[in-house]
Amino acid sequence: MTTTDISTLGAALRAVLGDAQVISDRQELRTYECDGLAQYRVIPALVALPRTAAECAATVRACVDAGVPFVARGSGTGLSGGALPHAEGVLVVTSQMRAIRAVLPQDERAVVEPGVINLHVSRAAAPYGYHYAPDPSSQQVCSIGGNVAENSGGAHCLKYGFTTNHVTGLEVVTPDGDLVRLGGAAPDAPGYDLLGAFVGSEGTLGITTEVTVRLTRSPESVRTLLAGFAGTDQAGAATSAIIAAGVVPAAIEMMDALAVEAAEAAVRCGYPAGAGAVLIVELDGPAAEVDAQFTDVERLCREHGAGEIRVAADDAERALIWKGRKSAFAAVGRISPDYIVQDGVIPRTALPEVLRRIAEISAQRRVRVANVFHAGDGNLHPLVLFDDAVPGQAEQAEEVSGAILDICIAHGGSITGEHGVGMDKVGHMPRMYSDDDLDTMQLLRCAFDPRGLANPGKVFPTPRLCGEVPGRRRGVHPLQEAGLAEVF
Amino acid sequence: MTTTDISTLGAALRAVLGDAQVISDRQELRTYECDGLAQYRVIPALVALPRTAAECAATVRACVDAGVPFVARGSGTGLSGGALPHAEGVLVVTSQMRAIRAVLPQDERAVVEPGVINLHVSRAAAPYGYHYAPDPSSQQVCSIGGNVAENSGGAHCLKYGFTTNHVTGLEVVTPDGDLVRLGGAAPDAPGYDLLGAFVGSEGTLGITTEVTVRLTRSPESVRTLLAGFAGTDQAGAATSAIIAAGVVPAAIEMMDALAVEAAEAAVRCGYPAGAGAVLIVELDGPAAEVDAQFTDVERLCREHGAGEIRVAADDAERALIWKGRKSAFAAVGRISPDYIVQDGVIPRTALPEVLRRIAEISAQRRVRVANVFHAGDGNLHPLVLFDDAVPGQAEQAEEVSGAILDICIAHGGSITGEHGVGMDKVGHMPRMYSDDDLDTMQLLRCAFDPRGLANPGKVFPTPRLCGEVPGRRRGVHPLQEAGLAEVF
Repeated sequence: MTTTDISTLGAALRAVLGDAQVISDRQELRTYECDGLAQYRVIPALVALPRTAAECAATVRACVDAGVPFVARGSGTGLSGGALPHAEGVLVVTSQMRAIRAVLPQDERAVVEPGVINLHVSRAAAPYGYHYAPDPSSQQVCSIGGNVAENSGGAHCLKYGFTTNHVTGLEVVTPDGDLVRLGGAAPDAPGYDLLGAFVGSEGTLGITTEVTVRLTRSPESVRTLLAGFAGTDQAGAATSAIIAAGVVPAAIEMMDALAVEAAEAAVRCGYPAGAGAVLIVELDGPAAEVDAQFTDVERLCREHGAGEIRVAADDAERALIWKGRKSAFAAVGRISPDYIVQDGVIPRTALPEVLRRIAEISAQRRVRVANVFHAGDGNLHPLVLFDDAVPGQAEQAEEVSGAILDICIAHGGSITGEHGVGMDKVGHMPRMYSDDDLDTMQLLRCAFDPRGLANPGKVFPTPRLCGEVPGRRRGVHPLQEAGLAEVF
Repeated sequence: MTTTDISTLGAALRAVLGDAQVISDRQELRTYECDGLAQYRVIPALVALPRTAAECAATVRACVDAGVPFVARGSGTGLSGGALPHAEGVLVVTSQMRAIRAVLPQDERAVVEPGVINLHVSRAAAPYGYHYAPDPSSQQVCSIGGNVAENSGGAHCLKYGFTTNHVTGLEVVTPDGDLVRLGGAAPDAPGYDLLGAFVGSEGTLGITTEVTVRLTRSPESVRTLLAGFAGTDQAGAATSAIIAAGVVPAAIEMMDALAVEAAEAAVRCGYPAGAGAVLIVELDGPAAEVDAQFTDVERLCREHGAGEIRVAADDAERALIWKGRKSAFAAVGRISPDYIVQDGVIPRTALPEVLRRIAEISAQRRVRVANVFHAGDGNLHPLVLFDDAVPGQAEQAEEVSGAILDICIAHGGSITGEHGVGMDKVGHMPRMYSDDDLDTMQLLRCAFDPRGLANPGKVFPTPRLCGEVPGRRRGVHPLQEAGLAEVF
């Protein structure tokens, strides 16, 4: 895009949004050069800050008319580079669309704009005894629109499910610039569930302008304990025993020794000194159920070697236990100048084996790895530590981080649990999916975005030329090749 | 399709499937002329009975090569005509794909072929203490493949969710004849959630050949009560009070006087004589929780005017209570020669008002309506009674049935809760969705099925000519028309 092109598009956007809502100054643009994944930095050609759905649609229309890519961004806290700008594109920032439009406790719904902060939804619902269940560690700053784009998880998703389970309706701007509604307030709408496909599509199918979320009744009782173990093997065995006993905790989180050390250094959360691993187990629900099951959980932790078990006596003690966990990523900055936050999933049953393999690789390559994870659903967050000032360390860390994903895949897992593919994991997609699987996904992308202007370069390793669709995709059909034998 | 064309395609299918797996005899074909919605009857040109995924894919390929439509059918129990054959097409029946391939209690998953009967999954999982949660009333005969196509619900979906919440992976034959996998065993897969879009797509995006379902741990305790009320107003108020108290029952079902009369006549379930409405409330979960909440439920029923309350003392008594409810549709045949099963959803809070409106219309038009429904989630099943032998009654019943859907829409509800759009409700889709909304859904259909061969004429009122896509769909963009004002 030439400088003239940028000026023309900038003028078109200013005509629609007003001067204050369009940024073209190079220094100001730099503020937006990355999201939470700071390894990648790209300065966008322009930033647009729409205040309404109509303005957002007009912004997309202006991009389409100019043939310029656009990338949506909420609070910019994503960890896979999903909101990384395009150097020749417009970054559409939804942070000025922050109205909570309705809280409807009787219908167990809230209607919010995409820039609304995750935690603010729960705060608005609290007076009625409700909350918004998905709780990423970044919930104090991340936006609902970004949560929708990434299908964000959180510690309590073990019991309550991911963002996709808590969004019942969306208003979105399609890559054509049309405003459409997907889903609604009802639990199940006739026709295709495009809502489900849109949630987690990382900005490649359009931009969310309104979100109807399910509100969850806040539990009568919440009880939380912190248990210290000799190592992750013991803590993992305790986790399996708790699940096998039929308990569905609201959350089971594990941190290994290095992660505990980091959290302690950063926020003084009072975790057991010298523990090889800690487990946070939280139960919620009716008091009768919680009390009965909590006794079981304590017993199972002890039976699997827990030393110190601390039960939160009140909300303040519970908050302190969670503070260590929720600040763990940032806390690692206290013990290492640089680090990579990895995100992978494995079947829960593979937990001990996978942790041993990670420890082996860490030892072999002499790269420290701190493990923080949602143990209950096998969602690992290994933190790979390095010092960028030491030549070669960054590359080594990248290798170890990639090797960890390979281990996840080899154990029947997935390359991302809740942080998304974004820019970061594009190269890993072919390790999870066949060409046919990826082609089938891209059918949807081509249908929504035949020009390929919505967040290009993210999610899919090889952008399909949409003209290739439809029709047979290779010369010979796989069933013919296989002589009608099973192809899987 | 000429007779010669049919013979040619029949020969091609026999070459792939074997003689016994292809039906072309007119008398035999008649067996397949309708599904559970017997108002519509169409004899297919051919029936194919594949035994494997590869055979199913080859069947679709043969149809594509011949340019012939194909319609998938499981057990044929659907109530919206989704499996109604195409007169010039092939009906692909999956009833011979009935293997349960794996039950994996540790992973809480089972892998089954599409023809497997819903209840058989629960039976296979029972020895491990698990079951498959979605339980349509037809669960003894309906197939998992059909459940996937229709996103089937059931009485226990109030607590446990619909089919879409219990399917984590699919193998499907696309309308191109490709075998692809959507999702997997992990709770969240990277890339688009095509799985969610496929579930409930009513055979218009392809045919399911393998289903990975989530298994649900069977609850420690189940308690069920039957309460008789003076009328639906009182039973509705009790329902609202139970939900407002924070109880999430496994099921809350309501039947009005006419439905009770029918059930009693058919299966002698011993419902309270003369009750204006009955409520079935079932709680499940840990015994401590269930016992505490059950006392609350009993009290709330009494406070809202329940006369007789019967608590099931054992499994046999529970089964008898459910027998009345689950056989209610068929039972209506005892009190009326013909009837229409309607299916609509309303916000639970609109229940009393909507029931009053239905009663008014029933009285005005002199058409009897029996109400059976999932009260907890506002999913109504009005049964509109008529006698086809009396001229004009069928038309009147159709009018009343349609008017009931209008009432649902007017109260913020939906035209189908769990039976699907199929053939039956195609005409109602424009009353729920704008042209833009329907166009956006059809983008997906065109992407998967540009030739329009997969179950044509179902779900969408006006099939889009797929060549129209992509690009601006009308001459003037709605935002331009609206002068950039809010378009909603």
